[in-house]
Amino acid sequence: MSRFFSSRHASLTAYTPGEQPQDRRYVKLNTNESPFPPSPAVVAAAAAEAARLQLYSDPESRAVTEAVAARYGVSPDMVLMVNGSDEILNFAFLAFGDAEHGFVCPDISYGFYPVFAALNHVPLREIPLRDDFSVDPEDYCGVGANIVLANPNAPTGRALPLADIERIVQTNPGHVVVIDEAYVDFGGESAAGLIEKYDNLLVVMTYSKSRSMAGARLGFAIGNRELIRDMNTVKYSTDPYNVNRMTQAAGIAAFEDDDYYMSNCRRIMETRAYTTRSLEKLGFTVIPSMTNFLLTRGPVPGRELYLSLKERGILVRWFDQPRIRNYIRVSIGSREQMDLFLSAAADILNTRSGKA
Amino acid sequence: MSRFFSSRHASLTAYTPGEQPQDRRYVKLNTNESPFPPSPAVVAAAAAEAARLQLYSDPESRAVTEAVAARYGVSPDMVLMVNGSDEILNFAFLAFGDAEHGFVCPDISYGFYPVFAALNHVPLREIPLRDDFSVDPEDYCGVGANIVLANPNAPTGRALPLADIERIVQTNPGHVVVIDEAYVDFGGESAAGLIEKYDNLLVVMTYSKSRSMAGARLGFAIGNRELIRDMNTVKYSTDPYNVNRMTQAAGIAAFEDDDYYMSNCRRIMETRAYTTRSLEKLGFTVIPSMTNFLLTRGPVPGRELYLSLKERGILVRWFDQPRIRNYIRVSIGSREQMDLFLSAAADILNTRSGKA
Repeated sequence: MSRFFSSRHASLTAYTPGEQPQDRRYVKLNTNESPFPPSPAVVAAAAAEAARLQLYSDPESRAVTEAVAARYGVSPDMVLMVNGSDEILNFAFLAFGDAEHGFVCPDISYGFYPVFAALNHVPLREIPLRDDFSVDPEDYCGVGANIVLANPNAPTGRALPLADIERIVQTNPGHVVVIDEAYVDFGGESAAGLIEKYDNLLVVMTYSKSRSMAGARLGFAIGNRELIRDMNTVKYSTDPYNVNRMTQAAGIAAFEDDDYYMSNCRRIMETRAYTTRSLEKLGFTVIPSMTNFLLTRGPVPGRELYLSLKERGILVRWFDQPRIRNYIRVSIGSREQMDLFLSAAADILNTRSGKA
Repeated sequence: MSRFFSSRHASLTAYTPGEQPQDRRYVKLNTNESPFPPSPAVVAAAAAEAARLQLYSDPESRAVTEAVAARYGVSPDMVLMVNGSDEILNFAFLAFGDAEHGFVCPDISYGFYPVFAALNHVPLREIPLRDDFSVDPEDYCGVGANIVLANPNAPTGRALPLADIERIVQTNPGHVVVIDEAYVDFGGESAAGLIEKYDNLLVVMTYSKSRSMAGARLGFAIGNRELIRDMNTVKYSTDPYNVNRMTQAAGIAAFEDDDYYMSNCRRIMETRAYTTRSLEKLGFTVIPSMTNFLLTRGPVPGRELYLSLKERGILVRWFDQPRIRNYIRVSIGSREQMDLFLSAAADILNTRSGKA
């Protein structure tokens, strides 16, 4: 760091996103992108806005906010659009956390939570998942801290039923419960329907996964009006025009094509079932997933598997974390991509047993 | 605010951006947008990327970073691309400020600086401009604090010569000097050429004004490698994929069409001269401007003028601030837009003298 960097960030370690190599073409199964392009209407809507870029975007993102509100049956003042859901997660730590108001989250979860906590100087306590990588809801009932819970969880892929989420929200009336539903469209149950009932619930969603818009940067939060107002205070104190014109237009069009996207999700879930069965046949253990990825371990150590796959042109994600060091996380791409991954995995196993 | 909002933000007042009314059409001269659309190549580049939105954008924004670096004659590791230049200004307060390392800025300047300071709990001392709204460089030489200086300044429009900026940077070797050059292409002198010489200089620029991309959200900083590395630590702790795919592509194309944009800037400067002369004929005082806007006062109080113009379909900006309460800030649009503004202003003056 430079000699000017504030010492208050001395212990800050930034997040490491999945590799985005620009040099060669990989079968890219490492950042949970959708194998399906955006719908033609989304492409057209974004492209049309490109001709009007000289004008600022609507800082209130009114039209797309109304589209989201209509889709989830809430009023527009319960929705806030952001430049990718990471932005709103950071806002939540900044707005609701401080030295006295810490957060809890699972020990294996989205790797950005500890970074947001450190950046905002908010204590974060990590609660270990059970041995099978499931969340024990009892750990969070009346926990006495703000909570951030990815449901379904990443990188495990496991989900809690809505009844458990409601119990967690209900038993923590004095704290904010952030449910990060980035992967909810792949078989999870959304807590969005509970918003009217609880003033301490903030549901965070993204267009990046199920709506094929990772490259557009669009996320949103649904929550009680007062929570949304707080988040707006933070937004207007950092980046009022956070969502660009093209992405706002694309975001509206995406909901008009909801059938296309939900059908894509079903196809991804079918491919997930196929990939799970195929991996198990190869001797892999697969954590049951409600997301567009699988956490899996095979007869080969995680890092070795990751590197051997990369050599063969297949990019998956490996986490250098104690409990999941022997696993890899594989995004569910197209059937063709998964077959390439499965052949490469089989080949690695064969090569290895040949050596032994 | 909600009962959950951290008390550490109790005194935070968010920034109020210029009005972006969606209800009726105005001659919009209130947010310093360009009257010129992006070039056809920019539109085409952004539109082409819309078809690939399912893939994340390059978190390092490599290609557009290289384009910026080439344009300003620096190496790519001295450049950081952001989602609009507000993002990097906030990062600068966050990275280099703390309770002991405050900032100074002029008392009349970009209204967001005090908000960034408050959000990040960084003391900010405002140094009064001279009576003619110019910056006295002596006020900043060896000032003993980090500095953020818009040059040209907004909303005054006045600029300091490069030699004064260099003296400020040189006499504050222990502090970071942020030069916000949002408006530099309308007649100012950029400090980008000083980067190699001083490790405490950070130059911030935007595509929003001279490059007709306000709605795309693209800004950047040029600075010493270590400063840029610090800013990257902050970026990767908040929003790694901050710049979307379409905007990255547009940003590259914009530099390929540099002649188009620089020619637009010249036309805006001509229209600025014309508008200044016309306002002076109407009895207005106009602060000499090196930007794409004018700060001007007429025989009518500022707020009344702003409201009367708005009634007539002309949107300008009025600031409820002590020293400039009797001024309005008028963006330089097309010649036709300025003529509409000038007729409306003349009409308001006539109506008023009729009344008197």
